[in-house]
Amino acid sequence: MARVLTGIQSSGRPHLGNILGAIVPAIELIKKNEEESFIFIADMHSLTSSKNAELRRENTLSVAAAWLAFGLDIEKTVFYRQSRRPEVAELTWYLSCFTPFPMLANAHSFKDKSEKLSDVNAGLFTYPVLMSADILLYSADLVPVGKDQMQHLEMCRDIASSFNHQLGEEILTLPEARISEEVKVIPGTDGQKMSKSYNNFIDIFLPEKKLKKNVNAIITDSTPLEEPKNPDTCNVFKLYSLLADEDQIQEMRSKYQGGNYGYGHAKKEFLELILDKYAEERKAFDLYMSNPQEVEAKLAAGEEQAKAVSMELLHKVREKLGFN
Amino acid sequence: MARVLTGIQSSGRPHLGNILGAIVPAIELIKKNEEESFIFIADMHSLTSSKNAELRRENTLSVAAAWLAFGLDIEKTVFYRQSRRPEVAELTWYLSCFTPFPMLANAHSFKDKSEKLSDVNAGLFTYPVLMSADILLYSADLVPVGKDQMQHLEMCRDIASSFNHQLGEEILTLPEARISEEVKVIPGTDGQKMSKSYNNFIDIFLPEKKLKKNVNAIITDSTPLEEPKNPDTCNVFKLYSLLADEDQIQEMRSKYQGGNYGYGHAKKEFLELILDKYAEERKAFDLYMSNPQEVEAKLAAGEEQAKAVSMELLHKVREKLGFN
Repeated sequence: MARVLTGIQSSGRPHLGNILGAIVPAIELIKKNEEESFIFIADMHSLTSSKNAELRRENTLSVAAAWLAFGLDIEKTVFYRQSRRPEVAELTWYLSCFTPFPMLANAHSFKDKSEKLSDVNAGLFTYPVLMSADILLYSADLVPVGKDQMQHLEMCRDIASSFNHQLGEEILTLPEARISEEVKVIPGTDGQKMSKSYNNFIDIFLPEKKLKKNVNAIITDSTPLEEPKNPDTCNVFKLYSLLADEDQIQEMRSKYQGGNYGYGHAKKEFLELILDKYAEERKAFDLYMSNPQEVEAKLAAGEEQAKAVSMELLHKVREKLGFN
Repeated sequence: MARVLTGIQSSGRPHLGNILGAIVPAIELIKKNEEESFIFIADMHSLTSSKNAELRRENTLSVAAAWLAFGLDIEKTVFYRQSRRPEVAELTWYLSCFTPFPMLANAHSFKDKSEKLSDVNAGLFTYPVLMSADILLYSADLVPVGKDQMQHLEMCRDIASSFNHQLGEEILTLPEARISEEVKVIPGTDGQKMSKSYNNFIDIFLPEKKLKKNVNAIITDSTPLEEPKNPDTCNVFKLYSLLADEDQIQEMRSKYQGGNYGYGHAKKEFLELILDKYAEERKAFDLYMSNPQEVEAKLAAGEEQAKAVSMELLHKVREKLGFN
């Protein structure tokens, strides 16, 4: 059975773009496919950019809560925090001795930052080795990656194959990339790609009042209320369409085209749709956030399962390298 | 009580240069000083240059056996293998996120190799971070360093102080360098500094017949037997002087100057001196080498002691970074 490994950034509470672009598709795939699934929260990676401990704890918790609220089946998934399997750091050291310096220096992710090298820490530079260890420690067969991560996956394969070659045994499994067929671009409140860094996201986990404010901030044009409107250029309609079913979409389309239907009406319907469609998930999320020990217990169980796998691989690696 | 931490290269069975330059002085200091002493075999570091597992095991064993044979007091010293406290790799990752890329790029040890970057692995590049973790994990106060390691120790201090500063607490102890007053340069069989890489070393642990060959390979000039000789330019005399007492040295000096005393005679006396002076150490070394489980037990005990210290520091670090 193929093992699929997915790393989740822990840069903050997941927004609608993360949910529709990553969480829901991943959870559906797990339900549908006969695959073994490993999903981890990449909190060690987050240290390359943020040194704030409170924020990291909060982010890790909210990421875990969101995945669980959306129904991640932890019977079918090994769900864990990267930092709770510190074996990955040990493997990172071993792998780094098989990683040519120029390979890291040529990584796009490093080159993009090389104009201001004084701001680059060594963790950012060696991050592709940590990512390789994340994958190789669990002998993952498949890794879902976006285009921006393809080079890192190639590096992982190169490091693993150099390791296997030099040690004369296929210890490490070379992972394949799984590129999602249709990459959904989720528009933000300003029409650009929804992203934390653009501050244009919809946070569906907000309390109702704040969520209303969030929805009301969607940018629209100034077509007067009574005039017909073009749904296809409207950010509210685009976002609504992502959640609504066909009938609902057609109905709103007609309203836009009929006139006497304002953006305020559309925003109200979008808000109601979120509250209705995600009622359960919102409740579950709040429950997890106010009972962190429940999240902790679920993650700890995943970390125990992960340990059995990571320790076995690490044992083999140590043996091959003369460390036991 | 100050804690002194010493890392030992595990690049092979210690030769006379290592013994007189490092092992004996360190063991004497431990006897003399009221200090807490941590000594570890840097086997993880050896992976940056050698991928040979059998050789690494053999080297680690023989380094440990040599230190023990020379009387390292493991009641007064925490003696351990770097790789058996993999916490050091975890701390290395954390520290690397506080290490500016240019600091590593400016390290002499890296610059020296930068003409052939394709031969440099990432482990060599980030090695100063691993070395920092070696020191900081045990909150060492003092680190004996040679001149070539001064820059690495400065880097360790810089990383630690950036870490403490950014986290607003003095978590990590800034180590001081202990530069040995008199750095003894031990000449090799060819008069150059004794070094494994010059292949000019005396291996006092060889069986007698091989040791004789080793001693006979000392390079001398072609002054005929009957002529007087200059002891001060002779490699045999220099080596003999390192082990002999004052009377013995004066006696051999006279023989050199008197004539009718050949280099072969001097070599024979040097061999006898080694066999006599190091009789116990040679026996102990052989015993340890043929009973590796005894060495294993002694190291394992040290590793347990080291664990108590490393886990406490790591726990604090994790807490400060939001990883628990």
